Amino acid sequence: MDWLGKALESVRARKPLVHNITNFVVMNTTANALLALGASPIMAHSPEEVEELVENADSVVVNIGTLDESFTYSMIKAVLRAGELGKPVILDPVGAGATRLRTRVASHLASLGGVRVIRGNFGEISALAGELGRTRGVDTATYDEARARELALMVARNCKAVVAVTGKVDYVSDGVKVYAINPGPPSVEERVEKLVRRVTGLGCVVSALIGAYLGVENPLRAAIAGIATFKLASEKAAEEASYPGSFHVKLYDWLYRLEGDALARFGEERVREA
Amino acid sequence: MDWLGKALESVRARKPLVHNITNFVVMNTTANALLALGASPIMAHSPEEVEELVENADSVVVNIGTLDESFTYSMIKAVLRAGELGKPVILDPVGAGATRLRTRVASHLASLGGVRVIRGNFGEISALAGELGRTRGVDTATYDEARARELALMVARNCKAVVAVTGKVDYVSDGVKVYAINPGPPSVEERVEKLVRRVTGLGCVVSALIGAYLGVENPLRAAIAGIATFKLASEKAAEEASYPGSFHVKLYDWLYRLEGDALARFGEERVREA
Amino acid sequence: MDWLGKALESVRARKPLVHNITNFVVMNTTANALLALGASPIMAHSPEEVEELVENADSVVVNIGTLDESFTYSMIKAVLRAGELGKPVILDPVGAGATRLRTRVASHLASLGGVRVIRGNFGEISALAGELGRTRGVDTATYDEARARELALMVARNCKAVVAVTGKVDYVSDGVKVYAINPGPPSVEERVEKLVRRVTGLGCVVSALIGAYLGVENPLRAAIAGIATFKLASEKAAEEASYPGSFHVKLYDWLYRLEGDALARFGEERVREA
Repeated sequence: MDWLGKALESVRARKPLVHNITNFVVMNTTANALLALGASPIMAHSPEEVEELVENADSVVVNIGTLDESFTYSMIKAVLRAGELGKPVILDPVGAGATRLRTRVASHLASLGGVRVIRGNFGEISALAGELGRTRGVDTATYDEARARELALMVARNCKAVVAVTGKVDYVSDGVKVYAINPGPPSVEERVEKLVRRVTGLGCVVSALIGAYLGVENPLRAAIAGIATFKLASEKAAEEASYPGSFHVKLYDWLYRLEGDALARFGEERVREA
Repeated sequence: MDWLGKALESVRARKPLVHNITNFVVMNTTANALLALGASPIMAHSPEEVEELVENADSVVVNIGTLDESFTYSMIKAVLRAGELGKPVILDPVGAGATRLRTRVASHLASLGGVRVIRGNFGEISALAGELGRTRGVDTATYDEARARELALMVARNCKAVVAVTGKVDYVSDGVKVYAINPGPPSVEERVEKLVRRVTGLGCVVSALIGAYLGVENPLRAAIAGIATFKLASEKAAEEASYPGSFHVKLYDWLYRLEGDALARFGEERVREA
Repeated sequence: MDWLGKALESVRARKPLVHNITNFVVMNTTANALLALGASPIMAHSPEEVEELVENADSVVVNIGTLDESFTYSMIKAVLRAGELGKPVILDPVGAGATRLRTRVASHLASLGGVRVIRGNFGEISALAGELGRTRGVDTATYDEARARELALMVARNCKAVVAVTGKVDYVSDGVKVYAINPGPPSVEERVEKLVRRVTGLGCVVSALIGAYLGVENPLRAAIAGIATFKLASEKAAEEASYPGSFHVKLYDWLYRLEGDALARFGEERVREA
C-alpha cells in the first residue's frame, strides 16, 4: 500500500497546518501527537479569530468533547468557513449519545456541509445515525462488528462524508465502498487494547491524525491513514511499555519514529475492502 | 484491612462512571489517573449538560481550581442534582483561603447538601472552617498535626460530610471518628514528598481517586481508600524514579499495577483510628 | 557567570509565587516546568479573583495562546494591577501576527505599563514591532539573525521592556544593550532543535521560567536566566532521549536536576554581549 507510506512522508515534508477546535482534556495530547507525527497544530477556539485561522489552515479538526455555548458557536463558524473555502474538516462527535446536547451539536455540525470525515466509536456514530432519523433501535453502544460496518456505510451516505467507526475492527466508508482496518494477532491486540483503554484522549488523537492526513490526501485515504498510523504506533509502543503512563510516552515516540515503509506494509497486511 | 483491597478490586470490576467538573490544569492528569486505576472518567462542565451527566454517573468530583462564573454555575447545578438523586459528590476546595472567591464558592458548594466528602490541604480546610464561622484565628496555613486532626473532625461535623485533611499525616473524619493515614519511614517519606511537591495536580488526583471509590464504597471508606491508593502508588513510583518527570509517568503505571493485597497490607500497617 | 547560578539557587530557596494567566494547551506543562524548577505556580484566570492573586504573587506570566474575551479582560486587569504594585509581568505574545486579534491584544497588553519582559519568536516580535508602527516591511517570519538582534533592541525601546527574541541565537535587550545566548556545537544543536520542535508549549515554558526568575532578579537577568535554564535543560534531556515523548519527560527531570554551577558555566560559555 504505497500511497500510505507516501502520505506519511508528505505530512513530514509539507507539515500541514492543522487547526484544532478541541476539548480541554486533550488539547495538549493531540497537539503533541500532531507535532510528533510531523504536522503543525494550531489550537484555538475564540469566535473572534476562528475564521481567520481556518483561512490559513490546511485542515480543521472539530471535537466536541467539552463543548459549551462559545465553543459550539466557534465550531459552527469554523465549519461554515471551511465549507466555503473547500478546506477539509474532520468532526469527532465525542460523547454523542451520552447527552442530548452532544448528539444535537454533533448532528448539526455534520449537516453544515464542510465536514469531510466523521470519526467516532460505535456508540457515537450510532447516536448520529439515530439523530439523523434513518435508523431505529439504536439502544446499545456495545460494539458489534457487522453493525459497525453497516453504520459506517449508512452514516457516510446520510452525511455525505467519509465515516470511520473505530473499534475492534475499524470500518471506514465513503458511502460507496467500505474498508476494514483489521486487528493484529489476538495476543498483540489484547495487550494493546488493555493499554489504549487506560489513557485519555486516544480516540481524539486518531481524529487529530486524520486531520493531519487531510492536509495531504483525500478524505477516504486520510481516514484510513490516520487510523493505520495510530494502530501501528500503539502496537510499537505496547512492545516497549507494559503500563499506561509509560505507554503514553512511547506513543509519542513512535508517532515520531514511524517510517513510511513500515506503514505501507501495515496497510498491505491489515487494510481490506470489506 | 480486607475491605481496602476489595474496594480496589470493585473499582476495577465495576468501572464506576466518575463525572468530573474540574480545573483546566489537571483535567488530563485526573482523567488519566482514573483510567489507570480502572474507573471510567467523564470530564464535562457545560451548564447545559451537567445534570444529565450527573444522572448517569456513579459519583461526581467537583474541583474549584480554575473557577469562573460558568463553572461555578455548573458545579452548583451538579451538586444540587446529585443531592436530589443521592449520588455521592466529593468537593476539592482548591485554593480556598487564597482568594475570597474560592473560599466563598467552596463554602457554598459544601452547604448544598450533596457533598459527601471534602478533601483539601491544611490551608484549604482551615479556610473552610473559618468561613463557616465556627473557628477563629485561622491565620496560618502551616500544617500542624494536632490541628489537622481537630480540623477534620470539626469541619466534618459542620459540613455533615466526611472531611480529609491531607498532609504529612492524613486525617479523615466523618464527624464521629477520626482516622490517620500515617507516613512511611522517614527516608521513604522524604523521597516521596520531594517528588510529589514537584508535579502539579496530585492533590486533585487524590480527590479524583476518592471519587472513583465513592462509586463502590461509603464516603468514609472511599476517602481512606483514595488516599491510601495514592500514597502507595507514589511510594512505588518513587522507588523507580528519582526526578519529577519520570515520577509522574511511573505514578500512572503504579495506579494500574497496584494490587488489592498490597493495598490491604498498606491499610493494616498505616491506617489507624486517631 | 556567578549571578546566573545564584539566580537558580534563589528560585529554589525562595520559591517565588508565579501567577500564570496562560493558555489551555500548556497550563499543565508550564505548571509542571515551574514546579520542577522549584518555583510555586498559581494558574488562575477568573476576572473575579485575578487582582487578588496578583497582589500575593511575586511575578505574573501573561500568555495569549488561547485568548477569548474573558481571558483578555483578566489579562488586562492583571497587568494593570501588577503595574500599580510594581510586580513584574512577562508577556508571551503567542501567535501575534497569526491573527489580527492576537497582534492587537498583545500590543495592547504591552502598552499598559506593567510588562517588564516580552518573550516571543521572530514572527511574534516582528508582529509586535509592526503593530507599534515603528517598522516597515515585516513581511516574513523567517528567522534572520541580524534582524532578530535589531528587533529585540527596537521593540525593547518602543515598549520600555526587556525583549527576548528566541530562535537559533536568542537575543535579549533592555533597549540599551543586547545579549546573545548562543547555540551549542552544530551536532548538539541539531539534535536538540529536532526534539524541541516536536513538543508543544516549550516556548511557553521558556516564558514561564523567565516568570520564575522575575521573582528573584531584575528583568534583564531574568530573561537571560530563563532562556539559559531552558537551553541547558533541553540539551541535557536530549542527551538522554532521542524521541519527543521521552524527551518531554526528561526535560522536567532536568529542570529539577540542574545545578547552579552548571548554569553559571553555561552562561560563561554561551552568553555574550552582542
